[in-house]
Amino acid sequence: MNNFTYHVYTDVRFGKDQINTLPELMAPLGKKVLLVYGGGSIKRNGIYDKIQKLLSGCEIYELSGIEPNPKIESVRAGAALCKEHGIEAVLAVGGGSVIDASKVIAAGANYDGDAWDLVVDNKKIGKVLPIVAILTLAATGSEMNKNAVISNMTTNEKLGTSSHYFKPAAAICDPTYLFTLPANQTAAGTADIMSHVFEQYFQKTETAYLTDRFAESILKTCIKYCPVALKQPDNYEARANLMWASTQALNSLISAGKGGGWTCHPIEHELSAFYDITHGVGLAIVTPRWMRYILSDATVEKFAEYARNVWDCKEEDNWKAANYGIDATEEFFRDCGIPMKLSEVGIDESKFVAMAEDAVKFGGLQYAYVALDKQDVVEILKMSL
Amino acid sequence: MNNFTYHVYTDVRFGKDQINTLPELMAPLGKKVLLVYGGGSIKRNGIYDKIQKLLSGCEIYELSGIEPNPKIESVRAGAALCKEHGIEAVLAVGGGSVIDASKVIAAGANYDGDAWDLVVDNKKIGKVLPIVAILTLAATGSEMNKNAVISNMTTNEKLGTSSHYFKPAAAICDPTYLFTLPANQTAAGTADIMSHVFEQYFQKTETAYLTDRFAESILKTCIKYCPVALKQPDNYEARANLMWASTQALNSLISAGKGGGWTCHPIEHELSAFYDITHGVGLAIVTPRWMRYILSDATVEKFAEYARNVWDCKEEDNWKAANYGIDATEEFFRDCGIPMKLSEVGIDESKFVAMAEDAVKFGGLQYAYVALDKQDVVEILKMSL
Repeated sequence: MNNFTYHVYTDVRFGKDQINTLPELMAPLGKKVLLVYGGGSIKRNGIYDKIQKLLSGCEIYELSGIEPNPKIESVRAGAALCKEHGIEAVLAVGGGSVIDASKVIAAGANYDGDAWDLVVDNKKIGKVLPIVAILTLAATGSEMNKNAVISNMTTNEKLGTSSHYFKPAAAICDPTYLFTLPANQTAAGTADIMSHVFEQYFQKTETAYLTDRFAESILKTCIKYCPVALKQPDNYEARANLMWASTQALNSLISAGKGGGWTCHPIEHELSAFYDITHGVGLAIVTPRWMRYILSDATVEKFAEYARNVWDCKEEDNWKAANYGIDATEEFFRDCGIPMKLSEVGIDESKFVAMAEDAVKFGGLQYAYVALDKQDVVEILKMSL
Repeated sequence: MNNFTYHVYTDVRFGKDQINTLPELMAPLGKKVLLVYGGGSIKRNGIYDKIQKLLSGCEIYELSGIEPNPKIESVRAGAALCKEHGIEAVLAVGGGSVIDASKVIAAGANYDGDAWDLVVDNKKIGKVLPIVAILTLAATGSEMNKNAVISNMTTNEKLGTSSHYFKPAAAICDPTYLFTLPANQTAAGTADIMSHVFEQYFQKTETAYLTDRFAESILKTCIKYCPVALKQPDNYEARANLMWASTQALNSLISAGKGGGWTCHPIEHELSAFYDITHGVGLAIVTPRWMRYILSDATVEKFAEYARNVWDCKEEDNWKAANYGIDATEEFFRDCGIPMKLSEVGIDESKFVAMAEDAVKFGGLQYAYVALDKQDVVEILKMSL
């Protein structure tokens, strides 16, 4: 087991009506609040009005229209608002995109240069305004972690940045907010959760036994409850388990004692950067192909363990078990209604080389479970067509 | 799934030589430090000297001799030292006993009355000095939670108290510190970890699926690695997994979404309060008897799930599976070398009624998975003879 730091200080309020704790959570942070949200669903479902009522003693400024793959232009606009109005805290209401954007906005508020600098080089991140997140999508885990991913369509770059101070001071996770999610977002969000687990589970460190069992627990939860949520969007048990799974999948619980680079996320980031597709869909498409591509004598035991512990595969032969698990993964995503070919989401092979180059350049693929070079990535993308 | 708050802010530094981060962790907390420890093993294994060296810029006062079931007299002495020297932070070096005592000392430092008041009534806990823990035993989880248990042998009381501010600011968890643990402490510590899981796993809430899988992950880890650690005390993988299991077993991860009272801990607290036996030993003795006593049509399904998911029981009949799991639990503790009868640790039935009365009075047994009254507790104690 590798050495690690585990420091997850976010005050999570989980469950029905937890939004009522918002005044108590915001009080120590400040009165001047920037409310950040997306396309306006929070106005239709009542969260917006509820916030206005609960924070009637605060001075609230607003930034709406955060995109599904949040753009640097939105971040710049948010940072400018913070500077103009002396904002003291950022209230992010939405999924990972809104929370990610809010993190860089909260850092940009205290940075004199262009906010894109903070994405390209996280050493430039200084003081960060405190962030409170109200989660409306179970996917990225941004509500309890240090990560943010921002897109720059001008340069075809979708890059991750991080800071210990990006971790939200508090997060309100009410599973009922997921009841109105469209099926495709439920499915793509689940694919994102599962991909976070895969990226950390399939690593070279084999001695982090407890961490791997935690990882499998999250995968089993996704497999059990995504189909339930798709059939019964207002099933509280399903939504609650998926929401908690999303938070725990990327708050450093399942990286504890493990280590190494990621694979499918860096590859998917290029798909989104070039084509602006849904992150979770890109991950679902790439993941089983990546698994097949790296399956070898060196990795077969881990994939067999995955099949047995997560998919209850009874197969004793490691190769058969491993393939069973990979097939099950692909079928699961397909059964959740996710388009499982790049060609189905309008992507052909014309930019595969350029995307592979950037994935290798920005993605640290040399540190992954199985190191990949440009040609490997092109092959995986071809398998995904 | 019940509503819950998850707010675990302890900065955990896990792994070999993490003690070197001590100066960085202590720096923001203060220069006047009370070092609290137990019987002196930290002088034999070099931790004491290392601390003196690392904190050479601090003014260090000491309280040693904290007992395995920490006594209120030690807490009073620690609180007095804090007041006398204007202590700014408490450095607890040891297992749960030392950390528990340090928590109440840290609160007592700012309390004008008798520190026992803070144990009897946690509403009297006000400001708490920041605590840093260096863990030398995998058992109680005190290094990352809000709980403290203190004994008062004058009144035969062993009571728990808690405060959000008891959570250590930081915890250093170096698995190599467990290498020199005697076998009986390794075994008793593991029984304590497993009992924490049982208390939270066997609850009425059935919809916290992910939380229950996390719980099973911790149990499987204990079952896999305690025998390894007993045979090879310096097996890093075993010690590391057990240490991380102990921390996660009682930091609110596996109570998330669940709820209700505990059973074996309140009963064991009376055994320790009357006879001062090792906490983990008392728990190991009582637990399988409690399981047998409450096994019924209402609970058999949960016990069967436990047997299948934790002990890999293939039995399809729920009753057979449930009994398999309970038998396996008892055999496991016995195989770890724990004396499995009260008579083996010098306890007869003369005080069963008095202990049962106190367990019901202080233990909230009416809120447990299966509510217990005085007569139930007497029966369980008789089964444990």
